[in-house]
Amino acid sequence: MIKVGVNGYGTIGKRVADAVRAQPDMKLVGVAKTRPNYEAEAAVRKGYPLYAAIPEKSDAFRNAGIDLAGEIDDLVMQSDVVVDCTPSGIGEQNRELYRRYDTRALFQGGESADAVDASFNARANYDVARNDDVQFVRVVSCNTTGLSRLMAPLDEAFGVEKARITLIRRGGDPADASRGPINDILPDPVTVPSHHGPDVNTILPDLNIDTVGVKVPATLMHLHSVNVTLSEAPSVDEVRDLLHEESRLFLVPDIAGIGGTGQLKEFAMDTGRPRGDLWENCIWDESLSVEDNDLYLFQSIHQESDVIPENVDAIRAIMDAADQQESMEKTDENLGVGL
Amino acid sequence: MIKVGVNGYGTIGKRVADAVRAQPDMKLVGVAKTRPNYEAEAAVRKGYPLYAAIPEKSDAFRNAGIDLAGEIDDLVMQSDVVVDCTPSGIGEQNRELYRRYDTRALFQGGESADAVDASFNARANYDVARNDDVQFVRVVSCNTTGLSRLMAPLDEAFGVEKARITLIRRGGDPADASRGPINDILPDPVTVPSHHGPDVNTILPDLNIDTVGVKVPATLMHLHSVNVTLSEAPSVDEVRDLLHEESRLFLVPDIAGIGGTGQLKEFAMDTGRPRGDLWENCIWDESLSVEDNDLYLFQSIHQESDVIPENVDAIRAIMDAADQQESMEKTDENLGVGL
Amino acid sequence: MIKVGVNGYGTIGKRVADAVRAQPDMKLVGVAKTRPNYEAEAAVRKGYPLYAAIPEKSDAFRNAGIDLAGEIDDLVMQSDVVVDCTPSGIGEQNRELYRRYDTRALFQGGESADAVDASFNARANYDVARNDDVQFVRVVSCNTTGLSRLMAPLDEAFGVEKARITLIRRGGDPADASRGPINDILPDPVTVPSHHGPDVNTILPDLNIDTVGVKVPATLMHLHSVNVTLSEAPSVDEVRDLLHEESRLFLVPDIAGIGGTGQLKEFAMDTGRPRGDLWENCIWDESLSVEDNDLYLFQSIHQESDVIPENVDAIRAIMDAADQQESMEKTDENLGVGL
Amino acid sequence: MIKVGVNGYGTIGKRVADAVRAQPDMKLVGVAKTRPNYEAEAAVRKGYPLYAAIPEKSDAFRNAGIDLAGEIDDLVMQSDVVVDCTPSGIGEQNRELYRRYDTRALFQGGESADAVDASFNARANYDVARNDDVQFVRVVSCNTTGLSRLMAPLDEAFGVEKARITLIRRGGDPADASRGPINDILPDPVTVPSHHGPDVNTILPDLNIDTVGVKVPATLMHLHSVNVTLSEAPSVDEVRDLLHEESRLFLVPDIAGIGGTGQLKEFAMDTGRPRGDLWENCIWDESLSVEDNDLYLFQSIHQESDVIPENVDAIRAIMDAADQQESMEKTDENLGVGL
Ligand SMILES: NC(=O)c1ccc[n+]([C@@H]2O[C@H](COP(=O)([O-])OP(=O)(O)OC[C@H]3O[C@@H](n4cnc5c(N)ncnc54)[C@H](O)[C@@H]3O)[C@@H](O)[C@H]2O)c1
Ligand SMILES: NC(=O)c1ccc[n+]([C@@H]2O[C@H](COP(=O)([O-])OP(=O)(O)OC[C@H]3O[C@@H](n4cnc5c(N)ncnc54)[C@H](O)[C@@H]3O)[C@@H](O)[C@H]2O)c1
Ligand SMILES: NC(=O)c1ccc[n+]([C@@H]2O[C@H](COP(=O)([O-])OP(=O)(O)OC[C@H]3O[C@@H](n4cnc5c(N)ncnc54)[C@H](O)[C@@H]3O)[C@@H](O)[C@H]2O)c1
Ligand SMILES: NC(=O)c1ccc[n+]([C@@H]2O[C@H](COP(=O)([O-])OP(=O)(O)OC[C@H]3O[C@@H](n4cnc5c(N)ncnc54)[C@H](O)[C@@H]3O)[C@@H](O)[C@H]2O)c1
Repeated sequence: MIKVGVNGYGTIGKRVADAVRAQPDMKLVGVAKTRPNYEAEAAVRKGYPLYAAIPEKSDAFRNAGIDLAGEIDDLVMQSDVVVDCTPSGIGEQNRELYRRYDTRALFQGGESADAVDASFNARANYDVARNDDVQFVRVVSCNTTGLSRLMAPLDEAFGVEKARITLIRRGGDPADASRGPINDILPDPVTVPSHHGPDVNTILPDLNIDTVGVKVPATLMHLHSVNVTLSEAPSVDEVRDLLHEESRLFLVPDIAGIGGTGQLKEFAMDTGRPRGDLWENCIWDESLSVEDNDLYLFQSIHQESDVIPENVDAIRAIMDAADQQESMEKTDENLGVGL
Repeated sequence: MIKVGVNGYGTIGKRVADAVRAQPDMKLVGVAKTRPNYEAEAAVRKGYPLYAAIPEKSDAFRNAGIDLAGEIDDLVMQSDVVVDCTPSGIGEQNRELYRRYDTRALFQGGESADAVDASFNARANYDVARNDDVQFVRVVSCNTTGLSRLMAPLDEAFGVEKARITLIRRGGDPADASRGPINDILPDPVTVPSHHGPDVNTILPDLNIDTVGVKVPATLMHLHSVNVTLSEAPSVDEVRDLLHEESRLFLVPDIAGIGGTGQLKEFAMDTGRPRGDLWENCIWDESLSVEDNDLYLFQSIHQESDVIPENVDAIRAIMDAADQQESMEKTDENLGVGL
Repeated sequence: MIKVGVNGYGTIGKRVADAVRAQPDMKLVGVAKTRPNYEAEAAVRKGYPLYAAIPEKSDAFRNAGIDLAGEIDDLVMQSDVVVDCTPSGIGEQNRELYRRYDTRALFQGGESADAVDASFNARANYDVARNDDVQFVRVVSCNTTGLSRLMAPLDEAFGVEKARITLIRRGGDPADASRGPINDILPDPVTVPSHHGPDVNTILPDLNIDTVGVKVPATLMHLHSVNVTLSEAPSVDEVRDLLHEESRLFLVPDIAGIGGTGQLKEFAMDTGRPRGDLWENCIWDESLSVEDNDLYLFQSIHQESDVIPENVDAIRAIMDAADQQESMEKTDENLGVGL
Repeated sequence: MIKVGVNGYGTIGKRVADAVRAQPDMKLVGVAKTRPNYEAEAAVRKGYPLYAAIPEKSDAFRNAGIDLAGEIDDLVMQSDVVVDCTPSGIGEQNRELYRRYDTRALFQGGESADAVDASFNARANYDVARNDDVQFVRVVSCNTTGLSRLMAPLDEAFGVEKARITLIRRGGDPADASRGPINDILPDPVTVPSHHGPDVNTILPDLNIDTVGVKVPATLMHLHSVNVTLSEAPSVDEVRDLLHEESRLFLVPDIAGIGGTGQLKEFAMDTGRPRGDLWENCIWDESLSVEDNDLYLFQSIHQESDVIPENVDAIRAIMDAADQQESMEKTDENLGVGL
């Protein structure tokens, strides 16, 4: 049993905790939170041991009538791996803490690639995290995860000469009440290319990829408008067959009558997915198209959840507890990946 | 066992089906759908027998590889009660069908009060549906349900002299991809008072209530800005205690740090609610306030789900299978109402 | 000629400058800005003398190739009145600056009532600013201005027993690219009553008014859902006639087919209004309704511009340059108020 | 003087009428409308002679107290050119009407290319409309106009090998109160490539261009994410210089601090543009970037107004009243194109 602690219990942290609990070969030691808000209350209801992420604020939990299992140091000490799900930049500061107890740690996409020993995507470079001298691994961001999962098989099968992606990003997560924009389509960043391409290169170093970013007033999912110039031109059916093989790519079937991300999430909820999560890249089957050597497609990416299976795999990888295929299959089965 | 059929499997129908399945004293005979889209696919995965709502379109299901258990007439014939969850106005046309098989039917808030024998809210007028000569009952709309649940106890305890409500309504459900507005705040209807007040009077005939309606570009929940002039002025604590007694009213606690409907839904999902449904009126505790005889409060209403417990109770009421208290308690327990 | 300086050249400041320029009895000395952005560029094109609001940042203007007429102290020294249009709270800090040169100043609604000698609305309390020992006057916020203009005539004609208002506020101005919410209906503040009522009482001290606030994802205008219990019950026509008399109330006619704030703004632009500004309260004629002694109506308030005529009048009032009727008529004629 | 009639007085028609009035070599005969709504009222205020577009509905105008100058046939008879600005598909039906009076007509982008003798963009193929046997000309859509203006000079200067564009389209115009989506990012069309590429080929037949379309909840402008593989690789400065030459391309300068389309429109209004119109492609200067032979840039397109100068030029072209350079210069000067 791998003992796992989760530090930072927000959008990503709560999902990582649930996913860890669903793995028979892992044990959730507990979760660390800063404040006794509704998310703490929900954690308590689920029976997750709660640790104070900021010891000086422990009293707030007591005042709210919430029992603590301890403080963050206790959690780190008891864990084989801590999954750090704190806001961008905080993770880097937490490295000292993890070093103190010689505990391995996973970080999320908001941290810099320079702050870790390796950047990770289960499909594309699982083994990078298995190395003995790797203590800190970064599970790349939702967008980079979505791109890596798609580019890896395309490159292996047909050779990617150049990928050009427009990332149309949701303005904020559904529970962010103060972020905008309200009525705008923002070049974001306005400089081209965006940082997303270089981030993909932390996973697939040789991939020739240019990305540009846009931000819009929607909360549910990102949309990637993908163009890939391939070395050899496959038929659409060959591309479809290739993508069908990948467990974490979901080809949204034409016949389903799904017309947008609202209905995609509705489908996820209809099938009983917790929180309506879509762990898979959602590739719009009708959008698959090849013009000469150029492949085009749209994929919708559920920013809140596509990195969750990757975190689970990264735990096994950093503990060298399973090889790539074994881990991915376990994760998929225990979570229920595959629509 | 009460045998229940669901005709119309959209936003409301799918939730009614799940809720019926969760009741030990009911049996879901099946659900009727018009098209073999993603919702049909999800119903199949749940093992719900599927019936063709429009017999001429049965072929479409076969072409999509979906097995049908029969056609709508078969479903109506086998059911003790059909819950009609078709779009506004279709229900009224379906009465002939239900009469043909002498089957009792529930309709939703989109149907006219004149099309049924009685309008129903479990808290306010449960017994109206138990009458022997009642065949057709309308479970009132999400807004009217939310208002009835609140007004009934207030009127009983303190006397309502006049209620004035501004209903700030979501522009469309999350899965509606073409409805607007995008960037507007619409008086809707622009005429005052809106139809919502008279609709509450189908449940509470003597209540003096004026309502006005507004539509805004949001999808998650409605918000009611409530003012009630009471006969006697209670303290805020007395109001709070009264509302706390009601199982289908949830007082959103200040301490939870919930700042809007996005976070309310997040909390619902954190606690494992299917689809993040909020069956209860969500009354913002901090908003409770009394000025002279005037009570003010905000309540958020989850339009997609607050009528679900009411539909379950209406099934028992129309079958005269339980009295009010027994039914409401059963429904709440089996569904998990109460946060 | 009254010499007027404008300090702070954003949403409000740019409109005040244009309005001052349109008054034959006033001279725009110049406008003070902090940064040489697109708004500075536009001011230059209009021929407005530009002053550095923050002297240390003067170089930035030079680097951008923009000539400055001087620094903020020069502007204040030359002006009879400065209209301070800086962000909330900055105005209060600027009082020292204005005192130094013994210059009268107007502040905007974001400043506290305690920071000034008087709060001002042209229709309701013009004379308060004419007093000799008044140096600092606050033109109240867009919402308070809209409410004061409506309540003053209603109270005079029929007596207001109690006003209850739900303010459904735009989430951010059209040019705010980072403010939200994106998909939410927020009680804001969640506590009831909101601060808007007491703010109206700085203008109409005896008015019995309760207000509650809501924030939604729209940018164009606020919407007020208004209920007023009157001492004597007028007919709808009597109310309509009363409101028609007021030059700064625009009764949106039913026949115009205007269905929301998008179309209201469109109409403003169609008629040639600069920036599509709507200086008047836009009261939806069809919404006027009287139930017993209760008057109901909707009014849309253009947050960016309804305070502009009030600023112009406040300049005359604080200089004691005209009485109420003369000033309001001049302002209306020179600006083109009245639709 | 060219006598011009405008049939259909909505978003495009009202702007065409204003633009025609601003040309000294043209005379606006009048505008035809279907209903006496607020737009009719505004036309009357501007002194535009009003014609009933649908003769049977003339009475509605009389009832609304609006004088008509005649009916649509009168307008067509008196005009040298009619600019048809009716909704998509209606224009095609109106050809019979224009043929009856042997009147030349311009149509808008909503009409099919097959319904006209030529598709027109002033920069790219002005002369196509000067041909004697051309009676019907289509001014292409806002998106196609924006793409043609950009591709023509790029192709002439550097050779376009392949253009790949993601069009992120506004969900509806600002005055559309019922269109959505509210909270979604829709592949629209989901099939790739979209129809926009072939539409550009009606103007630039040999251009190798693939386009994909997306729809989002914003109203102000479209955003084009542009990638062009060029035959020879220019420096960014060479591209910038080339684009600077074009009067209908506006390079949004970095120094202006404009951060999105809300601020772009604000700048347009600050400079006094009627309705805040942006007749030029707004190309984000900071986004210009060249990677190998690949040029990337973002351009924002004001859907309501970029086709207006093109309509004015098309009038001169179809009347053979000026050559390309003369017409474009006149149009730009009389309208005030160029920021
Ligand atoms: N939300 C997404 O869409 C998304 C997707 C992929 C990756 N990520 C990345 O995941 C990380 C977490 O993002 P999130 O969206 O879950 O953020 P979040 O704000 O939802 O959650 C962060 C949590 O950490 C807590 N926290 C703050 N300071 C802390 C501290 N010092 N110690 C412990 N906990 C602390 C916060 O209270 C909050 O509960 C970031 O690196 C982010 O870039 C986010
Ligand atoms: N969505 C809400 O917020 C809400 C809340 C309370 C009440 N209601 C009411 O519930 C009813 C259903 O609304 P909804 O939102 O679930 O609609 P919906 O559009 O989500 O679902 C309606 C379903 O009925 C199907 N249908 C259409 N014609 C049919 C026919 N002839 N026979 C059988 N099925 C048919 C549709 O395919 C669809 O699956 C309406 O009366 C509505 O006013 C809706
Ligand atoms: N925008 C509205 O809807 C609205 C309506 C009514 C009243 N108000 C009030 O008007 C005031 C101004 O608001 P706004 O919306 O115009 O803000 P804004 O942000 O649009 O403009 C403020 C301007 O002041 C400048 N500024 C910042 N610091 C300064 C300083 N120290 N000295 C001089 N200038 C400085 C900013 O650069 C900016 O140009 C606030 O009190 C606000 O509450 C705003
Ligand atoms: N709005 C845009 O963003 C945009 C941009 C470029 C091109 N276009 C094209 O311009 C054309 C007009 O679009 P719009 O946005 O101005 O539409 P609109 O709906 O704003 O205006 C159309 C006008 O035509 C009137 N009308 C309807 N039927 C008529 C008839 N039979 N005879 C005369 N008038 C009639 C309508 O009442 C309305 O006033 C369409 O082909 C559209 O595709 C629109």
